[in-house]
Amino acid sequence: MFSLQALQQRIGDAFSTTRFDREPFRLYEPIAYTLEMGGKRLRPVLVLMSCDLFGGNIEDAVYPAMGVEIFHNFTLLHDDIMDNALLRRGKDTVCRKWNNNTAILSGDTMFVIAYEYVAMTAPALLPQVLNLFNDTARMVCEGQQYDMDYEHRSGITIADYMLMIRLKTAVLIACSLKLGAMLAGADTEAAVKIYEFGIELGLAFQLRDDFLDAFGDTTKFGKAIGGDILTNKKTYLFLKAFELAKGETRSTLEDLFFSNEKNGNEKVEGILGIYRLLGIDEITRREIEIHHAKALEILSSFSFSDEQSGAVNGLMKEMLGREK
Amino acid sequence: MFSLQALQQRIGDAFSTTRFDREPFRLYEPIAYTLEMGGKRLRPVLVLMSCDLFGGNIEDAVYPAMGVEIFHNFTLLHDDIMDNALLRRGKDTVCRKWNNNTAILSGDTMFVIAYEYVAMTAPALLPQVLNLFNDTARMVCEGQQYDMDYEHRSGITIADYMLMIRLKTAVLIACSLKLGAMLAGADTEAAVKIYEFGIELGLAFQLRDDFLDAFGDTTKFGKAIGGDILTNKKTYLFLKAFELAKGETRSTLEDLFFSNEKNGNEKVEGILGIYRLLGIDEITRREIEIHHAKALEILSSFSFSDEQSGAVNGLMKEMLGREK
Repeated sequence: MFSLQALQQRIGDAFSTTRFDREPFRLYEPIAYTLEMGGKRLRPVLVLMSCDLFGGNIEDAVYPAMGVEIFHNFTLLHDDIMDNALLRRGKDTVCRKWNNNTAILSGDTMFVIAYEYVAMTAPALLPQVLNLFNDTARMVCEGQQYDMDYEHRSGITIADYMLMIRLKTAVLIACSLKLGAMLAGADTEAAVKIYEFGIELGLAFQLRDDFLDAFGDTTKFGKAIGGDILTNKKTYLFLKAFELAKGETRSTLEDLFFSNEKNGNEKVEGILGIYRLLGIDEITRREIEIHHAKALEILSSFSFSDEQSGAVNGLMKEMLGREK
Repeated sequence: MFSLQALQQRIGDAFSTTRFDREPFRLYEPIAYTLEMGGKRLRPVLVLMSCDLFGGNIEDAVYPAMGVEIFHNFTLLHDDIMDNALLRRGKDTVCRKWNNNTAILSGDTMFVIAYEYVAMTAPALLPQVLNLFNDTARMVCEGQQYDMDYEHRSGITIADYMLMIRLKTAVLIACSLKLGAMLAGADTEAAVKIYEFGIELGLAFQLRDDFLDAFGDTTKFGKAIGGDILTNKKTYLFLKAFELAKGETRSTLEDLFFSNEKNGNEKVEGILGIYRLLGIDEITRREIEIHHAKALEILSSFSFSDEQSGAVNGLMKEMLGREK
């Protein structure tokens, strides 16, 4: 069993030894810029780890794993246009450093490159691998659409929100794990189970991200606190607060949410105060724990060795334990 | 051998019996809107025709052919954003009817759907079909990038232009034909040759489009004359005129090209006058004829029956003979 560090190293090497810039440079430079930024490379590591867990050769999974990471980065390029985002991983977004048209077309090209890497799969496995990847890509697009729709829609429920993060975030985590299992030749039952594990892990991961946006330690979280609050994101925290707030608290919450006149700090502090008053931090922690526990339960149904479970737990800690 | 009309009918039926709208509607409505617009469906017809020519069953090619058409329409959605285009096939573009973000995300989703249709290929053929499709998609993106680059670059040559239209237009025509051949189980030599035929046909097709933009009959062409001139497109016609114009003609051409103060009609008429003076219409006709002849030469190297050649010639006339 490879250690988490060894898998991260393998993926890091795979990217650092690949040159993405070529002619026409205006097309490929933004791609190289994006892929050289790094990031945590969680998804490709999940592919390799899953392949390893199910007894496969991780070398067979390196290219498809890169495909998943390139796909993920393509979605970020296009999401950043739609969100008007200026910074990504502490650097200028492609749409800011170049322009929207560049981010559209370089993004499209990254999408093609993702498919090229996914296609570097044993021919016998390609039909099922391609179907998995297509299904996932479509769901990720649907998730982004729901995310945008929710901005302008009232009456969004927690169930709506959970559907959205399932599509936008969890299915790609789950796809990564299932892909690794497929490439290792795991049976269908195992592939389905590891996918479900990935869904629960992905939901916990996104809820954790929402939590840290409100209650994280700025230095460790790597971005400013309250970004979701300032941009009126209908996160789990906000929807739960909206569900629980009554009377004066409710009207203060609504005032703060709908008013963009107030200065940013006042809005963030005001809403955070209400979150604390209503115990949203504890409620969110509990919700994360529910999905974490479901994931662990699925994991325990496999007969993994201590070493194997240790590796998975290490990655789960990396994904869910950033606050500690 | 199926007639051109029968193939067009088959593709038309395939699209009209497929429902593309589903939830989330804001994502899928623009896709249904785009795919229900119709258009000439040249590319999927080329897939079926080629499959038929090489002795395949066209029913095996219907879904991959739809994939090519959906891919083509995806590129139009994104190109229309980059070009700020308002009209497409006489109707509002998606970026105008909805907005740019919708055109980005619905476009991305169409790209996934294209891959879903391409994936509906016999498993044994999937690796080579997917590679062809990936290579083509990447080249189309590169072609669009060169097209955008040329807007802001001086010193563009005819050779640059021919490279650009080869990537942006001809490779997808060629891919359609090669895909049909592959699906029919044609040998590699035949697949390579029909691809080369498609490249020449595609180059002639794009040059014809440029020609009609300047010298076409508005009622038959379906769009206003001089669109390329007004948007300062460095087409074959313009580059050839720039190459040949000397002295006063040259400075008038430059003045007209760089000035946006003049009213549109004056600019179009002025440049068309220079085109006529320099014989650009005849020169372009000759260039189209060169590629047309090359295509016919490749075609004659196959031992097609009269009926088969007749069907191909019918489609070539449809693609290249719109002025008559």
